[in-house]
Amino acid sequence: MLDVSLLGTAGTMPLKHRRLSSAYFRLNGKGLLMDCGEGTQVALRECGYNFKPCGVICFTHFHADHISGLPGFLLSMGNEGRTEPVTVIGPAGVEEIVNSLLIIAPELPFEVKFIPVLQSVEYIDIDGYHITAFRVKHNVNCYGYRLDIRRPGKFNTQKAKQNGVPLEAWSTLQKNPSAVIDGRIYTADMVLDSEREGISVTYCTDTRPCTNLTQQATFCDLLICEGMYGDDDKLDKAQKSMHMTFREACETASFADAKRLWLTHFSPSLSHPEEFEDFAKSLFPHAEIGFDGLSDTIKFK
Amino acid sequence: MLDVSLLGTAGTMPLKHRRLSSAYFRLNGKGLLMDCGEGTQVALRECGYNFKPCGVICFTHFHADHISGLPGFLLSMGNEGRTEPVTVIGPAGVEEIVNSLLIIAPELPFEVKFIPVLQSVEYIDIDGYHITAFRVKHNVNCYGYRLDIRRPGKFNTQKAKQNGVPLEAWSTLQKNPSAVIDGRIYTADMVLDSEREGISVTYCTDTRPCTNLTQQATFCDLLICEGMYGDDDKLDKAQKSMHMTFREACETASFADAKRLWLTHFSPSLSHPEEFEDFAKSLFPHAEIGFDGLSDTIKFK
Repeated sequence: MLDVSLLGTAGTMPLKHRRLSSAYFRLNGKGLLMDCGEGTQVALRECGYNFKPCGVICFTHFHADHISGLPGFLLSMGNEGRTEPVTVIGPAGVEEIVNSLLIIAPELPFEVKFIPVLQSVEYIDIDGYHITAFRVKHNVNCYGYRLDIRRPGKFNTQKAKQNGVPLEAWSTLQKNPSAVIDGRIYTADMVLDSEREGISVTYCTDTRPCTNLTQQATFCDLLICEGMYGDDDKLDKAQKSMHMTFREACETASFADAKRLWLTHFSPSLSHPEEFEDFAKSLFPHAEIGFDGLSDTIKFK
Repeated sequence: MLDVSLLGTAGTMPLKHRRLSSAYFRLNGKGLLMDCGEGTQVALRECGYNFKPCGVICFTHFHADHISGLPGFLLSMGNEGRTEPVTVIGPAGVEEIVNSLLIIAPELPFEVKFIPVLQSVEYIDIDGYHITAFRVKHNVNCYGYRLDIRRPGKFNTQKAKQNGVPLEAWSTLQKNPSAVIDGRIYTADMVLDSEREGISVTYCTDTRPCTNLTQQATFCDLLICEGMYGDDDKLDKAQKSMHMTFREACETASFADAKRLWLTHFSPSLSHPEEFEDFAKSLFPHAEIGFDGLSDTIKFK
């Protein structure tokens, strides 16, 4: 199962009662952070999480409201005693930008590794998360991320026996793709039923509706999607600033057949996004208006 | 008169109900910010100030908890429409460090100017603030700042006449150091009584007690001083981390004959600094335990 929390839901600038957009995921004790604006470290603590288990940080893009909290966040991880490397994933230039910010956090007790995302769609496997980074449509190079948590098939004794897999390989093949016994290779598919349905969450901020987003949100368990403006009248503004209205986010969720939608990344001018809840639900019944701290645990079927 | 607000009182890391140490000053509509950790922009807004009038930002040092909020702060100033230059004052390296952080705020609508402080004590006059930067005793190069708001003497008609200052120079000399009439120079001291008592505030975080601090706090109207630990038992910790206990801050205020003391920059381990209020007052009667938003207006006598 996968824990999901919206740490903040503010776009552009932090407000008194609304922290900058960010989300945190936890899978088997391994944390993954999406974006890290100013204040994210406090938001994480408010949600009851620790820093130390966070091994992966994904950046959608490098506007300050999505990354300025990184030095403080990494320092707090160090203060909590993390010594294992942390992997930072982001658009081209991620290493240069992060290193530039780390001038004020020069002595971290762990290594920071980088995975720059260069193609329109890229796949990264790390800490049990199968990540798909996909380019979205903003006024700078910007990505969304789909997280897939795969679930292998059940162990099938009959299949193992039929395939002549020796007993001493059975346990290994339930956790590893292959095992070598007496010079012969045995693979997991020789003892397991076909892969069961996993968990998938798609996260995006700062984009117009686009094909990549719809594709990567298809059939996901949860789409966390920007909704900069609640009111249809703000469509013009959304188009100019390369953001989305609630209607557009709901239509994306609906078209992609997402199971649920959490709206986030609200404009500072949108004081009470919850006033648009009925409107959002009328467009996509499983829409929820995000708020700082909104959390859930998504379980395997 | 001078408005003073503690924007935050946390040392090391921001807590849910305690923002990072920072103070804001306002003099004749001109703002001056001391330090800018993560969250300072929200703290400023919570205190009811605007960003635009802030023309000077002083940094005590470059630990992340004192500077990481700068990119967001400057972006918010730009969003509010500031186009006049902003002057950043700080220890050696200030320009390199700030420019490194501004990689995520590359297009500010105003110029950022720099004044590096290199000597043990330096003087800077800007926006009506007479600033004394003084080196303190921390584990990195770190400064405190004294702000003096000078108050010229009253206009003295008799003196002006005695010194033969022509009538058309009188108004000019009340606002300027000199005036030239018919090729002759007249100076302000020819028409003004001697300077009246001004206002002075001394600000320091991150230091052990030291001579520079005591000197620069002498007779000040308000000393804003770090007090990392309330309990005398933490003296050892304070010594090791190059910070101060409440007792040391109170003794500094007392020895310097400061009029008032606001304690700030509390350790995350000091959950309720207000519990040490009686103790602090027993050492220095005009001590106050700072809190986020503590504000006052210091008037000329």
